[in-house]
Amino acid sequence: MCELLGMSANVPTDICFSFTGLMQRGGRTGPHRDGWGVAFYEGKGIRLFHDPQPSSDSKIADLVQTYSIKSKTIICHIRQANRGRVCLENTHPFYRELWGKTWSFAHNGQLKGIKKKSLEFYKPVGTTDSEWAFCWMLDQIRLRFSKPPRQPETLWRFVHKLSRELSELGVFNYLLSDARYLFAHCGNHLSWLTRRAPFGNAQLIDAEMAVNFHEETTPGDIVTVIATKPLTKNETWKKMASNELVVFEEGELCYQA
Amino acid sequence: MCELLGMSANVPTDICFSFTGLMQRGGRTGPHRDGWGVAFYEGKGIRLFHDPQPSSDSKIADLVQTYSIKSKTIICHIRQANRGRVCLENTHPFYRELWGKTWSFAHNGQLKGIKKKSLEFYKPVGTTDSEWAFCWMLDQIRLRFSKPPRQPETLWRFVHKLSRELSELGVFNYLLSDARYLFAHCGNHLSWLTRRAPFGNAQLIDAEMAVNFHEETTPGDIVTVIATKPLTKNETWKKMASNELVVFEEGELCYQA
Repeated sequence: MCELLGMSANVPTDICFSFTGLMQRGGRTGPHRDGWGVAFYEGKGIRLFHDPQPSSDSKIADLVQTYSIKSKTIICHIRQANRGRVCLENTHPFYRELWGKTWSFAHNGQLKGIKKKSLEFYKPVGTTDSEWAFCWMLDQIRLRFSKPPRQPETLWRFVHKLSRELSELGVFNYLLSDARYLFAHCGNHLSWLTRRAPFGNAQLIDAEMAVNFHEETTPGDIVTVIATKPLTKNETWKKMASNELVVFEEGELCYQA
Repeated sequence: MCELLGMSANVPTDICFSFTGLMQRGGRTGPHRDGWGVAFYEGKGIRLFHDPQPSSDSKIADLVQTYSIKSKTIICHIRQANRGRVCLENTHPFYRELWGKTWSFAHNGQLKGIKKKSLEFYKPVGTTDSEWAFCWMLDQIRLRFSKPPRQPETLWRFVHKLSRELSELGVFNYLLSDARYLFAHCGNHLSWLTRRAPFGNAQLIDAEMAVNFHEETTPGDIVTVIATKPLTKNETWKKMASNELVVFEEGELCYQA
């Protein structure tokens, strides 16, 4: 199973702490030796790092861990290949432009028969089910809305409808973002928590590391972290239900259904 | 003026030597303090690095220089902002998917009135003339060809026609690639050279650095480098003419008009 990690925050925040835990699952404590990738939004721009190498050996992972890139929206993925060979073009997160925004997408699961769904505007570069599903979802959004709907919730409901349709093909845990909003859909495994004042101490499950967020933050910070499995052992994570979709903006939950 | 650097080769080749020369122009010997970016193709995949920071101070530039990523097709750009503020989404190379390939594009010049040209499928994320021009070219290609034309030269001629049209708006030096082919169009400044056996010695203009390619290569290697201005002082660079388009595949010139 692949590992997903997402973050939505109201101030640019680094993800070094959570990333340290996740990276251990990429070859040391976990079986995810087939590459990893991360998308950091910075305004409307996006910084992408993709590496088909195991993340615990990766020089680019070292850079990401030590350089502490700060972002308000982050999507990260560690891959265990099940469909599609191990190569750069099959490495999540995938990305496409829609409405002048760069959308990114990372998926955990399999979708049997996804390639029978025909594609119009967006075509996969690699051979994964995941990229096909992403292209199909953006196609459907584009066909339905030539520009962003006035009420954002109209789009969220539509994305939820598409997610339910694809969930019928298999396991569909994913993270999706257009820079401003972070969508998380649960097939079978996805948990999240929001950290806000008063901040406390957090201890990683996968590494001997703790952080006191009180020292790292200012009182107004709101930071939501989403992961396949909880990353810390002394905080309360909300386990998502099957077919549940949540949407975050600036770290705050703005849709849950 | 921005600096462009492109490479097309028949074996995965690093660009450390040329990049070292170019990076010096990003803040030390040159006035290009407004960011830089590079696209390395690896098969159909692409590795993108974008940094709005001056390249001579950039930690990501250090990584690219020392990690020696090998690729058969590379596009690199150092920016001096003239239109559009300095931020990640305005940093070249820009990239979009067409026909299941990731196209990338870097531009040097200004195009007066480009934003009067209407866009259909592709919309800019940032505010530069360059990204608008790229979106417009891909739009035109997509409108004309629903899939890649059987004869590649049909596409090259069409791209040349589009390039002439945009050249009427100003200065249009650019590099464009779909992973396999590297296109280079000259507005006013672009030079290239092809290195092949017997390989010799090359000396950078912008740094005290020389390399003996005989020691770094095998006899079958073919490597073409394209740059705004020649990067070495003891090799013969071909200076391109205004409105000239060249296309390379595996380091070999396959179109020139």
